[in-house]
Amino acid sequence: MSDRTVPILIAKARDGDPRSVARLISMVENGDPALPEVAATLAPYAGDSQVIGLTGSPGVGKSTTTNELVRALRRSGRRVGVLAVDPSSPFTGGAILGDRIRMQEHTTDPGVYIRSMSSRGQLGGLAAATPQAVRVLEGAGCEVILVETVGVGQAEVEVASLADTTLVLLAPGMGDAIQAVKAGILEIADVFVVNKADRPGADATYRDIQGMLGLGERVPGDWRPLVVRASAVKGEGIADVVAAIDKHRAWLETTGELRKRRERRAAVEVEAIALGTLRARLGNLREGTALSELAFRVAAGEIDPYAAADDLIKGL
Amino acid sequence: MSDRTVPILIAKARDGDPRSVARLISMVENGDPALPEVAATLAPYAGDSQVIGLTGSPGVGKSTTTNELVRALRRSGRRVGVLAVDPSSPFTGGAILGDRIRMQEHTTDPGVYIRSMSSRGQLGGLAAATPQAVRVLEGAGCEVILVETVGVGQAEVEVASLADTTLVLLAPGMGDAIQAVKAGILEIADVFVVNKADRPGADATYRDIQGMLGLGERVPGDWRPLVVRASAVKGEGIADVVAAIDKHRAWLETTGELRKRRERRAAVEVEAIALGTLRARLGNLREGTALSELAFRVAAGEIDPYAAADDLIKGL
Repeated sequence: MSDRTVPILIAKARDGDPRSVARLISMVENGDPALPEVAATLAPYAGDSQVIGLTGSPGVGKSTTTNELVRALRRSGRRVGVLAVDPSSPFTGGAILGDRIRMQEHTTDPGVYIRSMSSRGQLGGLAAATPQAVRVLEGAGCEVILVETVGVGQAEVEVASLADTTLVLLAPGMGDAIQAVKAGILEIADVFVVNKADRPGADATYRDIQGMLGLGERVPGDWRPLVVRASAVKGEGIADVVAAIDKHRAWLETTGELRKRRERRAAVEVEAIALGTLRARLGNLREGTALSELAFRVAAGEIDPYAAADDLIKGL
Repeated sequence: MSDRTVPILIAKARDGDPRSVARLISMVENGDPALPEVAATLAPYAGDSQVIGLTGSPGVGKSTTTNELVRALRRSGRRVGVLAVDPSSPFTGGAILGDRIRMQEHTTDPGVYIRSMSSRGQLGGLAAATPQAVRVLEGAGCEVILVETVGVGQAEVEVASLADTTLVLLAPGMGDAIQAVKAGILEIADVFVVNKADRPGADATYRDIQGMLGLGERVPGDWRPLVVRASAVKGEGIADVVAAIDKHRAWLETTGELRKRRERRAAVEVEAIALGTLRARLGNLREGTALSELAFRVAAGEIDPYAAADDLIKGL
């Protein structure tokens, strides 16, 4: 890559060129060697966007809800970015691309950028890749960024919790209220959306969640998660979801929690990059002689593997 | 743990006390803080044992084969250790404990030590834990150590490949010959055992494997994997398996490959421990102020996360 490529790409992305945004996010996905330069160039734009995480079990209607949220946000004139994160797959595709078809109405809207993302090749995995992709969209002028994670695995919960505001979607009749507790989702949700609210059992799910929120002790001044009913397929309740997001946003700003969350997000990102760098450096040692000399002495019983590991670290 | 505990445990393990061996392996599993001391005390006994890896898909008869191998090795008077490694489960149990019931005939034999092992809590995961558990059994005087891994995942292939001699079990009619190629098992096998050789399709499986071994180019002097037929349930062909293991062992010794393999195993172990240590040190930084100060500056857009990660690493 020539010396001029990164500044040009970022300048074009800031002008709203979707191809340059796509290229930058691919660089994040693939762990491109020029990423430090990308990050350095994007640093001044940190914090310009509102980042909203959206997670929930398969089948609760995440894509439909995202689609409706994009529509509502566009109505208020805001530029929107969508990152659909699939931690389990080394390649994006399958369910995600299928889901994206439902978002086709936005593909011709220059105010919307939609992207599926995996973490193949990225040092530090999704914990590093997602915040960096967010930075790219931030740099490209997206005022709101929706990070949608597929499923409810540990990695996805982690990614969703890195947002300013985290939405957890539930649907009636899926035992989701209990599942949410098990998956540790109760702790990360700022807003619960009971989707498919016109279906039987929606009231029970709503009550279950409200009940569970009432159980835990809450420090005065802490945020009490809102519970909103919606039917994304019918476009119903989306205004309430947006209102809940705005209410949480106002709370974040007045309490100073916004800054705290972003620092937490940055800490996770920095730590993940540092670990990835150290892992790469250890890997490089395989090429050299330090590791093989230590291995020789361990195999010969001259030193133990812990002492050898300490020696190895000193050489980094 | 008192200062005297580790030396006493190891002295007792060397006297053949099974409880002390069990306690030491539990320390390995749990990532006990005293592990470096355990490793240092065991270092002089490195390389005393013959380590045999045994892997294959579920249902090919790994436990039955292990059981018969133990019996054959005991007949020749050798002390035997068995490590059944389950990388997928944070707790040993289920299939493994069920399988172990078939080994009950050995439980009263003081010359046999059988242990299921997971890698919960261990810095560096199985890549570090398995060689350390092998060291414990080595220190306890086991002349042969069988490392049995359940299934054919990447982690298991890796663990099995750390042995002096790696056996890959196949069974007829499971499409195993093709599966073995896909899983990268062809590269790690020193001996193929076509188990259930009395069943229909065993000849085809035998021919498939022989055919595939004929396809690849082989450097003169390299080991050509042996293919052995057996029926572990009937106790048939086990002598041939032992003969194949002995033949490979003789090759390892005459070519100097034994030393090379053990150095490779030591290198993997040292690297895994080093990475685990670095990860722990990064984790400790969370308690201090360095990471939070860097995160503050990243969130404020003053520096980028890569520069912050570099700063963090310098502080390690």
